[in-house]
Amino acid sequence: MRPRAIACEMATPLLVHFVAGSSGPWRVDRVNCVVGEALASAERLAIHESPQSVAYGESTWVLRGVTSNTRYTNRPEVKTLVSKQAGLSRPEATRAALIPIRKTPAWWDLAQDERRAIFEEQSRHIGIGLEYLPAVARRLHHSRELGEPFDFITWFEYAPEHEGAFEAMLERLRQTPEWRYVDREVDIRLTQD
Amino acid sequence: MRPRAIACEMATPLLVHFVAGSSGPWRVDRVNCVVGEALASAERLAIHESPQSVAYGESTWVLRGVTSNTRYTNRPEVKTLVSKQAGLSRPEATRAALIPIRKTPAWWDLAQDERRAIFEEQSRHIGIGLEYLPAVARRLHHSRELGEPFDFITWFEYAPEHEGAFEAMLERLRQTPEWRYVDREVDIRLTQD
Repeated sequence: MRPRAIACEMATPLLVHFVAGSSGPWRVDRVNCVVGEALASAERLAIHESPQSVAYGESTWVLRGVTSNTRYTNRPEVKTLVSKQAGLSRPEATRAALIPIRKTPAWWDLAQDERRAIFEEQSRHIGIGLEYLPAVARRLHHSRELGEPFDFITWFEYAPEHEGAFEAMLERLRQTPEWRYVDREVDIRLTQD
Repeated sequence: MRPRAIACEMATPLLVHFVAGSSGPWRVDRVNCVVGEALASAERLAIHESPQSVAYGESTWVLRGVTSNTRYTNRPEVKTLVSKQAGLSRPEATRAALIPIRKTPAWWDLAQDERRAIFEEQSRHIGIGLEYLPAVARRLHHSRELGEPFDFITWFEYAPEHEGAFEAMLERLRQTPEWRYVDREVDIRLTQD
């Protein structure tokens, strides 16, 4: 089943399982390895949100992540995001991207002010994302503290006509100083049929 | 077994189980409920760190937390902390405190800059803690994203002669603006015999 419409970051933790295999409402169009180890391809993707049952059958792989409070976003940025962003599950948003990433130990050894400076003042991660609202809806999931192979999983949804804009956004983000700290990234595209 | 000597915050996540029951190297001296729902008393406490086996027998309760990167600490503060702090497992540090806390939804709805301002500029959480280094060693564990009943678990170790200083530190922290956002806190004291 599809996640419900929500804000881009949920303060109340919600555990989400992304289950790749032979069933699920999303058809996997492609699995591209951007950097580091790849993920196996699969036919379909299902998304299970706790506290619903997460009983699922055979899977090619399962990635887990949990929504959480914002880590870098300041109040004025939160206000702007909330005023512009769309929720998940819009009927027209039949395309999706599932992008798990891992950051280097050097990133995690940085202090909070250093990570914030790279994230926004140098890379404009929030600022770039804002330019693509409300066309691209997103939800961030934290995986690092769950012992998962990736640190974050971001789920994006958009209408087919916004695919070009979405690609442009990713291209810009991947050229930022922040992305020098990304040592594993897989880009999975999906269509709801 | 006891945790190894480490810095106050570990960037690499380490999952830790605090198991209260009838066995373990720490004798539980008292379990005080500071605010919110209490925890049952127990005789002993064992600490299991992953990736070691966490197979344990009967328990009165188990709290889980994971070490993680710093969330509010800026570089100058990290430098001062690292230069002053002591690691865990000092032979003379035979007293310990296990203090799980939960913060209110209002706290988690704050933006990063708002939480930082309350945490340090208004409450001097880092600054107060620094005054008690190296006497009091500590390790912070995050529990919120694990679906646990508390948001954080802090483990403190100190020598018996520093118990008064430790009490004074807690007293000061509990009077800060930050603590207005704490809606559950249990204070468990232990002795290694």
